[in-house]
Amino acid sequence: MLEALANPLLEGLHEQRIPEPCCIVIFGASGDLTRRKLIPALYSLAADHLLPSHLAILGCGRTDQTTEQFREDMKGGCEKFARAAFKQDVWDDFVQGLYYMPGNFDDDASFAALKTQVLEIEGKHGLPGNRLFYLAIPPSQFPIVGRGLASGGLTYKCEPNQPFSRLIIEKPFGRDLESARSLNRVLREGWEEEQIYRIDHYLGKETVQNIMAFRFGNAIFEPLWNNNYVDHVEITVAESIGTGGRGGYYETSGALRDMVQNHIFQLLTMTAMEPPISTTADAIRDEKVKVLQALRPLSPQEVPANTVRGQYVAGAVDGEDAPGYQEEGGVAPGSATETFVALKVLIDNWRWAGVPFYIRTGKRLPKRVSEISIVFRKVPHLLFKGAQIEPNVLAIRIQPDEGIVLKVGSKVPGAAMKINPVLMEFRYGTSFGAEPPEAYERLLLDSLLGDSTLFTRSDEVEASWRWINRVLEAWQQGAPPDPYPSGTWGPASADDLLHRDGRHWRHL
Amino acid sequence: MLEALANPLLEGLHEQRIPEPCCIVIFGASGDLTRRKLIPALYSLAADHLLPSHLAILGCGRTDQTTEQFREDMKGGCEKFARAAFKQDVWDDFVQGLYYMPGNFDDDASFAALKTQVLEIEGKHGLPGNRLFYLAIPPSQFPIVGRGLASGGLTYKCEPNQPFSRLIIEKPFGRDLESARSLNRVLREGWEEEQIYRIDHYLGKETVQNIMAFRFGNAIFEPLWNNNYVDHVEITVAESIGTGGRGGYYETSGALRDMVQNHIFQLLTMTAMEPPISTTADAIRDEKVKVLQALRPLSPQEVPANTVRGQYVAGAVDGEDAPGYQEEGGVAPGSATETFVALKVLIDNWRWAGVPFYIRTGKRLPKRVSEISIVFRKVPHLLFKGAQIEPNVLAIRIQPDEGIVLKVGSKVPGAAMKINPVLMEFRYGTSFGAEPPEAYERLLLDSLLGDSTLFTRSDEVEASWRWINRVLEAWQQGAPPDPYPSGTWGPASADDLLHRDGRHWRHL
Repeated sequence: MLEALANPLLEGLHEQRIPEPCCIVIFGASGDLTRRKLIPALYSLAADHLLPSHLAILGCGRTDQTTEQFREDMKGGCEKFARAAFKQDVWDDFVQGLYYMPGNFDDDASFAALKTQVLEIEGKHGLPGNRLFYLAIPPSQFPIVGRGLASGGLTYKCEPNQPFSRLIIEKPFGRDLESARSLNRVLREGWEEEQIYRIDHYLGKETVQNIMAFRFGNAIFEPLWNNNYVDHVEITVAESIGTGGRGGYYETSGALRDMVQNHIFQLLTMTAMEPPISTTADAIRDEKVKVLQALRPLSPQEVPANTVRGQYVAGAVDGEDAPGYQEEGGVAPGSATETFVALKVLIDNWRWAGVPFYIRTGKRLPKRVSEISIVFRKVPHLLFKGAQIEPNVLAIRIQPDEGIVLKVGSKVPGAAMKINPVLMEFRYGTSFGAEPPEAYERLLLDSLLGDSTLFTRSDEVEASWRWINRVLEAWQQGAPPDPYPSGTWGPASADDLLHRDGRHWRHL
Repeated sequence: MLEALANPLLEGLHEQRIPEPCCIVIFGASGDLTRRKLIPALYSLAADHLLPSHLAILGCGRTDQTTEQFREDMKGGCEKFARAAFKQDVWDDFVQGLYYMPGNFDDDASFAALKTQVLEIEGKHGLPGNRLFYLAIPPSQFPIVGRGLASGGLTYKCEPNQPFSRLIIEKPFGRDLESARSLNRVLREGWEEEQIYRIDHYLGKETVQNIMAFRFGNAIFEPLWNNNYVDHVEITVAESIGTGGRGGYYETSGALRDMVQNHIFQLLTMTAMEPPISTTADAIRDEKVKVLQALRPLSPQEVPANTVRGQYVAGAVDGEDAPGYQEEGGVAPGSATETFVALKVLIDNWRWAGVPFYIRTGKRLPKRVSEISIVFRKVPHLLFKGAQIEPNVLAIRIQPDEGIVLKVGSKVPGAAMKINPVLMEFRYGTSFGAEPPEAYERLLLDSLLGDSTLFTRSDEVEASWRWINRVLEAWQQGAPPDPYPSGTWGPASADDLLHRDGRHWRHL
């Protein structure tokens, strides 16, 4: 206990409830996500004593392997990828509940077989019927598995005193407004909205959750957090990698769908939302939806002046030659898929009227960095004549070097009243000294506990697609993406987007 | 030049004008201040090429010594105390203009002799008659020297195209309202107000000047800098030393006169003043005077509840035994002189109505630290139930570790929404990498340049004494100081002063 108190990471977690005994069923268990993220996250939760004493995990996948083989494979994943150090005794306990079942899961028979298997495992481990289904599978299979589970009798109605049945799905939640609506409709045939957990791993990141803590756990920021004091907001999510062998998937997606519709709009809503009346899942998500509903829609005529799409060509990242997007495997020659997006977004509400939110994201940019920058207005009166006073900036760094930095002007030592910017910094790592839990740990634990705060509600998804859809449609009629060399901050048109407003992107 | 640009300290200074050729006459030149502060400061300015090429310094004092002896003594002072490293070639040049003249300077004859001497030096060095007189002598001698200089024909009228004559005086500027007025009256017989430079070395400190840079060089603090967002302000000036052999002087002063009337009220006015319309000396001092005029006067009945005076008794500082004040040399048995003051001060204006400024200063406290803390109000709505959210604090550290620290709440890593305070820091030393100029360097340079911004105007002095006087008068009728052991934060009554308001001193 003394040790726990000395470690703020554990201190926080120890106040948490422990989930009820449960069976977790993972579809796509032979895939990368399961081995690299899901099982290592569950292992780390077990190592931190955050899982119920009775728990079983059944991996389902097309790969034909035994439970023993699966266990061996997952052990390797935990050794390599888990946040918590690998300990044999923790693993020996954890592995007792780990099972594998091969299958196609595309017809009634396979769901009947699955039910038999689940009941057997539940019987063996004394589980009360609580089930968490994790769909780590391509979105095209969401409907058939979602339906199969419900019609196969693997779920309980969402009622008091019944065991829980929950469904976790991974993005993409559709590829446009219509397909998102369709997916929501199909899933809702067998499931209640409150049973569906749409996972966006960005929301599991500590720094993203800290946006709320920072805004509403301090009295001094909220008075400044509006169009009286904020000049504009920049959100950058930059990757230095290319499509990383996922060229085929990326061709069906592009940066707007892959990053903006979900992750970046989540960052936007956390940054822009009104203070919720409470911290319940729906109170928070109500406020987030309001931001998405207030996004000023772009008409087809407005899209070219307010959006930029780019595609990387050959260049160099970190001194190493990098091929162009169209040279990557799985990419069609002449592809018009964007690997870079820049947007100017306006929020039509009282707080943000007139304050542009500039968004940019892309692959093969000079570095991997995600940051939200609140750029404040200039001083209203320049008291120190001739001084070059830069505006204040509050930068929330999501990754790497998670933390918050405030840029302020300070007097340069010396006889002249010369003011230079200095940084007031808080770094997560140095301040708390403990590695924060992995996003998937947090999200899996929350879903086991039935807390859907950090999961995306269907109306959020649809409001987000509603805005994105107009851009997608206009792009289909428009010019192809602007090329940018790998290792640069996107095409010149992305700089022009801000220059036209007399602004420039922050140097990150 | 490249070197200069790499050093922000020099960069700032290089933009500065160089003063006109001048003769500096220091009274009290055989005293400690001259050897430890004044000559080393002038030497450092010379080393940084900030003095005019033609400059002479004449030391005057009662000690009977030759110019050669004086030069030797000052060389030791520069080697030991100057900020700038001692360099023989700089010294060889500097010492050419250094002279000494013994005398009592209490009759017409001695001022006549002084005039002869000054004219001779001016002739030798080709000086145009500009004279800066520095009174590093006991205040009882201010009137006689001030008058002697004027009536002895050593000064020029304050008119265009005339050489300048300026008079620098050291605190104390009187020991109560009446004596301060009297001193101002006497000095004004021979001098214009704009010729008189009342030095308060606190104003020469970089961090004190940075209060203005920080407030008016950033757009984000001023909106919070008022009674809507500030709960209270604390100003602490703590010394760990005792009277340091100056018990005799201290008996005539006490902490209220020695620290509050001048230094701390300067910190208070810099913190509380309205934005001046410009950075001219009078625009800034006008605003400072307004704060002093707005201090709510204490009636004799209100003094006991809003002021604390303390006197240290034997104790230990830093693990070493320390005697009580009454055991120090030069202190009368049964002395009622306060070595500690705590005050609750209210500023009756629109911005600060209802916001108490708590002040404390004292000797033999646990450490040497000067800090202004802006303690903000609590969050208006506690969103995170059960969270212990501490109010934000902006701490301006004057010494040591000069810098600015913002205390903010941040999410503790982990599944619970637990918010702990973290510090966002800016440290002068690490940010600018150069040692700031000594306070006396800045102030001597400013007085040579005729910039009186950082000097105290007569109406400031009188407004300050007006408030202090009421406390002094009430104390004369009241109980003796509360004893506190050396090495503690003053008497318990100082804690009670805040506890009565539901507050407590910050732990420094």
